[in-house]
Amino acid sequence: MDEWQEAVLRHVGVGVRTTRSLIQLIRPEDWDKRPIPGKRSVYEVAVHLAVLLEADLRIATGATASEMSDFYAVPVPVDQIVERLEQAFHAYEQQLMTGFSTRSTYWGVTDSAPGWLMEAAVHLYHHRSQLFDYLNLLGYEIDLALFE
Amino acid sequence: MDEWQEAVLRHVGVGVRTTRSLIQLIRPEDWDKRPIPGKRSVYEVAVHLAVLLEADLRIATGATASEMSDFYAVPVPVDQIVERLEQAFHAYEQQLMTGFSTRSTYWGVTDSAPGWLMEAAVHLYHHRSQLFDYLNLLGYEIDLALFE
Repeated sequence: MDEWQEAVLRHVGVGVRTTRSLIQLIRPEDWDKRPIPGKRSVYEVAVHLAVLLEADLRIATGATASEMSDFYAVPVPVDQIVERLEQAFHAYEQQLMTGFSTRSTYWGVTDSAPGWLMEAAVHLYHHRSQLFDYLNLLGYEIDLALFE
Repeated sequence: MDEWQEAVLRHVGVGVRTTRSLIQLIRPEDWDKRPIPGKRSVYEVAVHLAVLLEADLRIATGATASEMSDFYAVPVPVDQIVERLEQAFHAYEQQLMTGFSTRSTYWGVTDSAPGWLMEAAVHLYHHRSQLFDYLNLLGYEIDLALFE
């Protein structure tokens, strides 16, 4: 493992661990709430977080719009969100370690394998922040270091 | 420039460009608002975004708590936030290209140079997301692709 792989694994690892902690705080009555009107619900953000590390690398390797639609359509029950997140992180880690060939996305963007690994990392932190904001808006008291 | 440096530069570049676009949308009457009670104001998040790429790498290279307190205390007028962001991005890019020696932070965390470059990248996306949420909560209609 070179020092860039170590760096990515460390910080995506922090993102996953803290995302899991946030998801585990969510009260049953809050899953369907939309703290920002017109945006994803709490449940929808949590599921998006749980699958995006895997989803983005599927897109990176040439998955079609239809294939991604099928991928996102697989239901994730509330009690399996954390497990789904771990599974996506495992898939991400495998691709980080082995490398992979990228293809143009179905909307025409091209990037390298490191580029896609970076994209997925910042995408995770983007929605982790959204979930953190949601929980704050819902009045949660959150005692969690989001960064090291 | 190796492919990891290219990847980081590309995605931090997207983060900076879109952060600038969000900052440029802010209406004068909104700077002091706190869309999430108890959290930073719109102005405070914008300034934090403008300096964090530079701040985090100062911390990475051993700046003390007192030095960081002085760094954060430099006022950034509203009409100079975008310029300050560009300056921080330039400093970040320089350190990305040349590399640097890290030291333990003033609270005892150690990481490599690539680790700190990753940390600053995800930190930028974390607060960009916060600013995006704030503007949505304030009713802005935002027509901006946050990712490529």
